[in-house]
Amino acid sequence: MKQILEIFSQGEELVTGQIVDTNAAWLSQQAVEIGFSVTRHTAVGDNKSELIALLSDIALRADCCICTGGLGPTIDDLTAQAVAEAFDAPLIFDELAYEQIAQFFSNRKRDMPESNRKQAMLPKGAERIDNGWGTAPGFSIKHNRCWFVFLPGVPVEMKNMFQQRVLPSLPHRFSLEQGTLITFKTFGAGESALQELINTIEIPSSVQLGFRASTDDVHIKLLFPSDYPKQQMLALIDDFSKRLGDFVFAIDGLGEVTGDLVFEIDKQMTTRNITLGVIETLSHGLLAAKCIGYDWLFSSSYQQSSIKSDAVMDVMSVLETMAYEYKKNCVIDYVLLQFYTGDKDCLHSKEKSVEMYVVLLTDTGLHKTRHTIAGSIQRKQNQAALLSLDLLRRYLSAKL
Amino acid sequence: MKQILEIFSQGEELVTGQIVDTNAAWLSQQAVEIGFSVTRHTAVGDNKSELIALLSDIALRADCCICTGGLGPTIDDLTAQAVAEAFDAPLIFDELAYEQIAQFFSNRKRDMPESNRKQAMLPKGAERIDNGWGTAPGFSIKHNRCWFVFLPGVPVEMKNMFQQRVLPSLPHRFSLEQGTLITFKTFGAGESALQELINTIEIPSSVQLGFRASTDDVHIKLLFPSDYPKQQMLALIDDFSKRLGDFVFAIDGLGEVTGDLVFEIDKQMTTRNITLGVIETLSHGLLAAKCIGYDWLFSSSYQQSSIKSDAVMDVMSVLETMAYEYKKNCVIDYVLLQFYTGDKDCLHSKEKSVEMYVVLLTDTGLHKTRHTIAGSIQRKQNQAALLSLDLLRRYLSAKL
Repeated sequence: MKQILEIFSQGEELVTGQIVDTNAAWLSQQAVEIGFSVTRHTAVGDNKSELIALLSDIALRADCCICTGGLGPTIDDLTAQAVAEAFDAPLIFDELAYEQIAQFFSNRKRDMPESNRKQAMLPKGAERIDNGWGTAPGFSIKHNRCWFVFLPGVPVEMKNMFQQRVLPSLPHRFSLEQGTLITFKTFGAGESALQELINTIEIPSSVQLGFRASTDDVHIKLLFPSDYPKQQMLALIDDFSKRLGDFVFAIDGLGEVTGDLVFEIDKQMTTRNITLGVIETLSHGLLAAKCIGYDWLFSSSYQQSSIKSDAVMDVMSVLETMAYEYKKNCVIDYVLLQFYTGDKDCLHSKEKSVEMYVVLLTDTGLHKTRHTIAGSIQRKQNQAALLSLDLLRRYLSAKL
Repeated sequence: MKQILEIFSQGEELVTGQIVDTNAAWLSQQAVEIGFSVTRHTAVGDNKSELIALLSDIALRADCCICTGGLGPTIDDLTAQAVAEAFDAPLIFDELAYEQIAQFFSNRKRDMPESNRKQAMLPKGAERIDNGWGTAPGFSIKHNRCWFVFLPGVPVEMKNMFQQRVLPSLPHRFSLEQGTLITFKTFGAGESALQELINTIEIPSSVQLGFRASTDDVHIKLLFPSDYPKQQMLALIDDFSKRLGDFVFAIDGLGEVTGDLVFEIDKQMTTRNITLGVIETLSHGLLAAKCIGYDWLFSSSYQQSSIKSDAVMDVMSVLETMAYEYKKNCVIDYVLLQFYTGDKDCLHSKEKSVEMYVVLLTDTGLHKTRHTIAGSIQRKQNQAALLSLDLLRRYLSAKL
């Protein structure tokens, strides 16, 4: 039976959207990696009755809860008081916590404000978690089913305290089973088309299948339990790979370091020592922008004019001539050219699409592709950059 | 009595920490700005019983709930099914939703996978919210005290649907006391430097001051209550404007439509009918990419080589010569050139900085600027694009 963990964040600035709760995602990753099942994140503002209600609920449904925020010195920091009331554990002055807070100020040659004394008050029965990176000590306390850990909300304090003082104790306190996560990184097909490709594969009920679509790619995830037989795991991965075909540009979780589409292209370009020149139209500079930091992109230029649609039949031959011209004038190995047809209205209208033509000139000759791209102008731009790069990726991985 | 709103996000990738829930913060800001009291954010994974329990709880304690995610075509997208069970509203096939999904695929000349049919199933009594930016339609449904709005989790779809289809209806549906929100959009100074500029201004306690820093700009927000005297409001805005000076590129909330830095540049370039040619180095195509859709950017090229640091003294004169050459060869009005000094290590290292030189050649002559840019390679790239554009912006608004 998986151990259930919840994340609870406190702060008015979170619920009003002034800051994004990055702590929750960071803590969840850590918890998942050591084998917890993270089921819920909750953020509430500076409201004591909300806090008390939430703490009482979590105490009944989770095995562990990591809480951040609300331990500061000001009156809107209510977490310790809420814990005291929710768990019937009155606040008690902690001598050692007080000394540590005083030390923090004397180290910085500053007077300790009286309001910081409040941070040394911990709920009865709680275990103090020393804070070597700021003033507020954290604490842990068990109530009903759940072991609660309270940490400051400042990321640098929270992360250090969690990694050094909390994480090492978790495997002793809980019976955790760490599984294996395999991620197929794909480009060129939507979530539902990918689902179609794999929907005849029988997936054992102990293996979790998940999809994550972003603007740049779609990830397909398989989470295997820790006791899953290795051979069967590899067989299932192989089956997925075959069905998904060359939509897959990387598989994460098998030991190799993987990245995004450009990162995978870089592996090949760098190994083979190939340089590239690009002319962009529809991607409008974004293709080059995505390649920053990689030396194989030698030059790139953006040109405004698209080819009029009555010349569609000739586009490819025009592009071919341009590619050869470009290569003749520059000392580069490959040339990647992109053009599109469609007027200004097609470009801007979400409802209309444009036709994009891509030509890749390599040492083995010309490789061409054509795509219909729809959506907002930003989507057209991004797809144009990625689809052009994907032609290069497919060529390099010899899947053309 | 303030109307209570909650945010509810669904997705295994959220609770496992694979992605950070930026949707929740964005939606909260919007809700606070029109007068809601946002009390709680909750994220849960792909677990139907968790979803049902949460929906039932929220229905009793909030007046409005904005839900994102879980509307995709795959089997792990469970939101509509959970709503059906929680609110006793069985799923019904929505003919029009189906046609819209089919249209989405035919626009892209792709076959519609059978699995997308699932997205046209909406709970009985729900009102469909059309999705013009992707496949999954959203929907709204009232249960007990709460009016629920369900939107896809993909940010671009969620944001467009919320702003165009949900936001306009909220003031009619709820009794909200909407104040006046004034936003100073700034570029070129950090949050704390801006804070220094305004920290001697006395701000009445009924006016809320807020900062929002993104990778592209910093917004300073003043939220005035609905009954705040107009003259005093304008006086305070004027005071802020004077102190913040030309860091402000737009003021939102005074009637004029404002956008990002490029949008503001476009207003001037289009009115004056000016064309621009650009050579990028550090921004690596990103400057051109940010200008997609605007006709005044005539051409742009990216060149790999940076000038060696022993030539620093001459950089400006080299750039000046290049700018005049460029203008002579192309039929353009303005030329914007960018170069940087610093080796590959400086570019890649987060701890090191590079020096960027920008030259703008206009009909009134040469305008120059120089910046030290630090941070990750992506930050350097983005700052290079924005700082170069900002030289143009300052020139155009006659603030040079």
